[in-house]
Formats: sequence, structure tokens, C-alpha cells
Amino acid sequence: MRMRNKPWADDFLKDHPNIVDVDLNHQYKMAEWFDKDQPIHIEVGTGMGRFITETAKQNPNINYVAIEKDKNVMVRVLEKVKEMELNNIKLINQDAKLLTEYFVENEVSRIYLNFSDPWPKTRHAKRRLTFSSFLEIYQHILKKDGQIHFKTDNQGLFEYSLESMSQYGMSFDYINLNLHEDEPEDNIRTEYEDKFSSRGFRIYRMEASFK
Amino acid sequence: MRMRNKPWADDFLKDHPNIVDVDLNHQYKMAEWFDKDQPIHIEVGTGMGRFITETAKQNPNINYVAIEKDKNVMVRVLEKVKEMELNNIKLINQDAKLLTEYFVENEVSRIYLNFSDPWPKTRHAKRRLTFSSFLEIYQHILKKDGQIHFKTDNQGLFEYSLESMSQYGMSFDYINLNLHEDEPEDNIRTEYEDKFSSRGFRIYRMEASFK
Repeated sequence: MRMRNKPWADDFLKDHPNIVDVDLNHQYKMAEWFDKDQPIHIEVGTGMGRFITETAKQNPNINYVAIEKDKNVMVRVLEKVKEMELNNIKLINQDAKLLTEYFVENEVSRIYLNFSDPWPKTRHAKRRLTFSSFLEIYQHILKKDGQIHFKTDNQGLFEYSLESMSQYGMSFDYINLNLHEDEPEDNIRTEYEDKFSSRGFRIYRMEASFK
Repeated sequence: MRMRNKPWADDFLKDHPNIVDVDLNHQYKMAEWFDKDQPIHIEVGTGMGRFITETAKQNPNINYVAIEKDKNVMVRVLEKVKEMELNNIKLINQDAKLLTEYFVENEVSRIYLNFSDPWPKTRHAKRRLTFSSFLEIYQHILKKDGQIHFKTDNQGLFEYSLESMSQYGMSFDYINLNLHEDEPEDNIRTEYEDKFSSRGFRIYRMEASFK
């Protein structure tokens, strides 16, 4: 998503190097950045951050990394992390293409993709977070039994992702084509999910792996 | 689907050995049964037969085989074939499990599955036409670049099929999660498709292959 430019965003993010990385300072040392040595789950394209901060709060035995390239959005996530006093979450203010600069092979146990930009035009397909070049990155950093958990309200992006991921050789462990019809109790809604579900849009969800 | 029992069905089907096979008479000689040597497309679970007869009428350069185990339904298909004077379609009144008795390896160019019985109970999963044992049969008789074309109004069956087929190693060449939202001009509706779409159900469609 796009937010209004916040001139103070740069300084605010740089003032919290213990939580946010903005310049590849922590490359290849992700595990050491956290207080505890425990499994790492990441969210690519975190947006406003409700999902990842709520999930981190409910799962103190997991370390979370939120990747979001828009600094004007990332400041909102940082505010939430500070307010909730979470110590099991770190933020990376970079493009998803740079994930391999941060994680070594087989380091990540789970990747969340929530309401990613659909890039509906065919000529922009390469920018979709389920395009093959991104799947290659995910495969590299994910553990062998790791999963991608993906939610979206965008029918076209979900269709495309089923095609792209299966053609890459991935398999689907779980598919739900109408998540809110009988919403699981443990579903943590993103800000977008609330908004688009209330407008009557279906929410699609999958769990996929490279097995 | 289940139809009322028709005591005359057996005799009617047996009276047309040039169109219908009821007792494995044509095993391993499918291609010879047709007037012309041309690609073979089959429909597994043909039901009332509107789809396959309309498709056969529109595509005289393809040979069609309709498989339906319920004789009380198959007689309706036979009536349509006779009425429409189609010579590029044959009917098999048998269970889909016996497909390999009729087709040799790599003989079939396309398999249609339309509105298959969803068998919603988990203990009946083995009966679903996209269960792994059926996929194994399809893989055997399909040409290497052959496709399965699958339509259903049943969300649970479509979700299950995406899981089952991807876990088998298949890939999806095309997915549509709401076919009638912008219905393609060349879509041929089955009897069921008309009925369930008019009731507001979504129609799901996929093209999948073993590539």
C-alpha cells in the first residue's frame, strides 16, 4: 500500500537499530539479532503490521521478521512493536528481492504473504510476490518442510499463484476458497482483510510447500 | 447423479453395440471402434450428456468417449447421440476404475471431469474422481502433453482437487474461480451447470497436466 510521505520516517526508523534494519547491517547474522534462538517466521510485505505483531504476541516461542519496503508504512509497524513491547520481532525496510542478503539457506520455517499487491497487468506479472523468481528466493531460505501461508482477497492473484506455484513444482497442503464463510477461531485478520471482507469480498487462503 | 430405475435401460443399451459398450467388448481396440483416426477426448462421469454431445457436434475432428456407470442416465446420452446423428462419439457404461481396460498408454489427448460427485465425507475421499488412484489411471492413458479439464460448483471438491493434484505432482495451466462472472463464449454448460449457476453458486474450472 502507499502512504503519504512522512519526512520524519527515515530518522524514526534509524533511531531504532535494535528493531529495524534499513541498510543491510544485519546480513547473514539474522539469528544472532534475536534474544532467543528459536524458529524464524517472516512476513513479506507487512503493510500496517497488525497481523505480524498480533501473531508475534500470541507466539513468544517464534522469532518474527517483517519485511516492508515502504518506510512510510514501516513506521506504523515500528510504533506497534514499541507499544506492545514485543522482543521477538525485527523489521527490515527493504525490497523482498534482497531476502537472500538477510537469511542463509534453510534458515526460515515459515513465510507469510498477506494481501500482496496483485499487479493485475500481465506486463507487471514479474512483480507479483508469487512470480517464479520470488519462489526461487523462498525455496532457498525456507527449511525443507517449511511452508508459505498466503491470504488474499484478490481472485486474479490467487488464480495466478495456484498456476505459478504448481508450475514451479510446489504442492498445496491446504486450500480455502472462502475463509470467512466459516472463519477459523485462530485466524488473525490484517487491516485489509477486515475492510475487504466487510465489503463482501471473499478471502482466499493456502498453505504451500516445496516438498 | 441418480435416476429412477428404467427396466428397459439394459436392452436399449445392448441394442446399440455400435455406440455403447456395456461388457468390455472393445478393450484395447478403442481407436478401431471409430470411423476416423483422430484425437480422442473422454469425459469421465458424463451424466445426462449435454456437454459431451454438444462438444462432439462442434468438433467433428475429435473422437469422444463418454464414460458413465449409471445405465439409467446413460440411456439419456444414447438418445441424444442418436437424435443428433453423431458419429464421433462412443459410450462406455462402466466404472471409471476400468478405464485402463479400454485405453492403452498415451492414447487419450484430453480428459473432461464435469460436476463430479463431491463425496463430501472424508471417509469417502477415495471415491472422488481426483483421488490419487484415479490420477494414476489418467496419467497412464493420457498423452504426455494431455490435459484434464475440470469444472465443478462444489467448493470443497475443488479445494480438495487442487491439493490432491498438486501433491501428485500435477501443475495447473489455467484456473478460474468464478467462471460465469465473465463466461467465455465457448463455454458449453452441462445441465447441472445451468441449474447451479442460476441459484447463485460459483462455477470453478481448471486445466491441469502431468508435465
